[in-house]
Amino acid sequence: MPPERFLARQEKLLSLIREAGVEALLVTGVSNVSYLTGFSGDSSALLIGPSVRVLLSDSRYQTQIAEECPGLETDIRTQKTKQPDQIASVVARAKPAKLALESHIVTADEFARLSDAIGNTDSGKSIEIKPLASAVEKLRQVKDDDEIAETRQAIFIAELAFRAIKPAMFQQSSERTIAHILEHQMRKLGADRAAFDIIVAVGDHSALPHYRSGERKIGESAFVLIDWGAALPSGYRSDLTRVLATGTVPSQLQELHGVVLKAQLAGIAAIRPGAKLKDVDAAARRVIEAAGYGDYFGHGLGHGIGLHIHEEPRLSSIADGELQPGNIVTVEPGIYLPNFGGVRIEDDVLVTPDGHEVLSSLPKGWE
Amino acid sequence: MPPERFLARQEKLLSLIREAGVEALLVTGVSNVSYLTGFSGDSSALLIGPSVRVLLSDSRYQTQIAEECPGLETDIRTQKTKQPDQIASVVARAKPAKLALESHIVTADEFARLSDAIGNTDSGKSIEIKPLASAVEKLRQVKDDDEIAETRQAIFIAELAFRAIKPAMFQQSSERTIAHILEHQMRKLGADRAAFDIIVAVGDHSALPHYRSGERKIGESAFVLIDWGAALPSGYRSDLTRVLATGTVPSQLQELHGVVLKAQLAGIAAIRPGAKLKDVDAAARRVIEAAGYGDYFGHGLGHGIGLHIHEEPRLSSIADGELQPGNIVTVEPGIYLPNFGGVRIEDDVLVTPDGHEVLSSLPKGWE
Repeated sequence: MPPERFLARQEKLLSLIREAGVEALLVTGVSNVSYLTGFSGDSSALLIGPSVRVLLSDSRYQTQIAEECPGLETDIRTQKTKQPDQIASVVARAKPAKLALESHIVTADEFARLSDAIGNTDSGKSIEIKPLASAVEKLRQVKDDDEIAETRQAIFIAELAFRAIKPAMFQQSSERTIAHILEHQMRKLGADRAAFDIIVAVGDHSALPHYRSGERKIGESAFVLIDWGAALPSGYRSDLTRVLATGTVPSQLQELHGVVLKAQLAGIAAIRPGAKLKDVDAAARRVIEAAGYGDYFGHGLGHGIGLHIHEEPRLSSIADGELQPGNIVTVEPGIYLPNFGGVRIEDDVLVTPDGHEVLSSLPKGWE
Repeated sequence: MPPERFLARQEKLLSLIREAGVEALLVTGVSNVSYLTGFSGDSSALLIGPSVRVLLSDSRYQTQIAEECPGLETDIRTQKTKQPDQIASVVARAKPAKLALESHIVTADEFARLSDAIGNTDSGKSIEIKPLASAVEKLRQVKDDDEIAETRQAIFIAELAFRAIKPAMFQQSSERTIAHILEHQMRKLGADRAAFDIIVAVGDHSALPHYRSGERKIGESAFVLIDWGAALPSGYRSDLTRVLATGTVPSQLQELHGVVLKAQLAGIAAIRPGAKLKDVDAAARRVIEAAGYGDYFGHGLGHGIGLHIHEEPRLSSIADGELQPGNIVTVEPGIYLPNFGGVRIEDDVLVTPDGHEVLSSLPKGWE
């Protein structure tokens, strides 16, 4: 990715730092550091503010940082220095009157240890530590062109792999085996790994939205739900769900499928810049409620995807806010009837300046 | 695993809770909850003390908990209740004067939110919140018979998979491809996944102790370092490293290999109950220093393995404490010469009442 991308992201973050009334933010979340600098390692931190920008890392990563982050000021610790002491000394040099920590990421112990280490330096000036949650995550909601291209690629690989392993679905494979060969196939096509633990749920297992793939064989029921996605080496992800018939599907399941598909299309149709998050959820939920299954759709309609599999914005009945161009969200209504089965259909949708673009393209019908 | 195992673990934790001077501990770490109860899901918490023992979870997991944790009192929230409120209300019923939180796991925001929620309940009695780090992790250092059996199995699978894919090492595969087929092979043999991101490091990549597998081809250098392990569905893990010759190995690398092997055997020989952690590290480090490579062994000698890939005890020059029967540690000295190459040899070793048992068995020489 071009270095200007990272500078542009840093500039946007500076506005949020100013709004929060602090002079600097210590970014410690691994994905956040990577998003802001392009550095792909871990155990590092970025101190950033209007008058300071330093990447703090250790000697293992010195060469890598020079390659990945040209021009960025760095502070490299040796094994004899502990990270909190390194941070304290870099902060002491920068002397912000108020410093924010990512309080949604650092542990209570880390927060206390950092406050203590920073408070104990002889900076000749006391530094006030403030919690600040999700500033970088707020930026990450809106994808730039490179991120959209990476997400398209993650979807492309997930779909291609799914098509390639589909014949295996009709053998006597276990759920777990299918999950493993699907991940392996995605890797062959360039994925770094699955975007999350792949769900392969045969028969009534599909009624559990967070089922983990187990030992049940594909042929033991007439249908199987698969929820999968690819994570690229860059970290960007896809997230898809389909239900496949592997035998004669019960008519009630076919009915559920029709309702869920109609709900999903209604949800997708509601996606545009300025649409309220809860209204998009409602557009799909209304269809399921009207069919009498409202009590069996127990989760939100969707969520943002990016460097993490669950990001803002959330499409749900309790979400505040609205969609913006550059959001990429899943749309995944479901109906789950305990001890019978569930249907969920999930696609990934980009919010465009004019409306939306469905980025995924696998057929949604029974085959 | 038999339910008595979990009760025995809970009883041991009660002693630590009493020692800490609190009436109860809220366990929120996923592996810690699983270790104490056998529950394999997430998003749950265990409130435990001499007069209270409740697993707090949500409706998705109700059936699973009934199967996995027979006899354990549960509190199940619906989607309308947020977890901090659920915790506050269960704590209010138990009324501990002092409640500890796992401050090394909960985020600063969660700590504040929980303190607030618990402080705001009308229990008629104020509850003091205290940070308590690593109580359950202290117990997890000492493995019981079931855990030792699981670890043996994780090692067995890792070794068998390594042998199976070894012929592929002599083709023109990329580091990443080798890592992927090794993980896939471990899964075919019963692993849930790789125990960590497998390192396949060709040539001078092996000089980077935390290298991630990339695009370099096996044949591009005469040697390759592989650091891999299996994680079972139960969560227990193995961790092994070998260096393989894939061509004519430079004589200096052969020399390094001899030194590292001698150091590893010296480290293993020092393992027994009561041995100081730093003395075991020193036993291996001394060999490398005597050969003149002391500056090129920049990490500790080893670490505990279990539900996590890095656990206590740590074998290092700055570790306090001693080995106990039931510890399972890696022994993994290395020498890393920048821009040339590195050698690390790693096995997994159980501390027995009389001394030690090396659990892994792959040959360590050049082949």
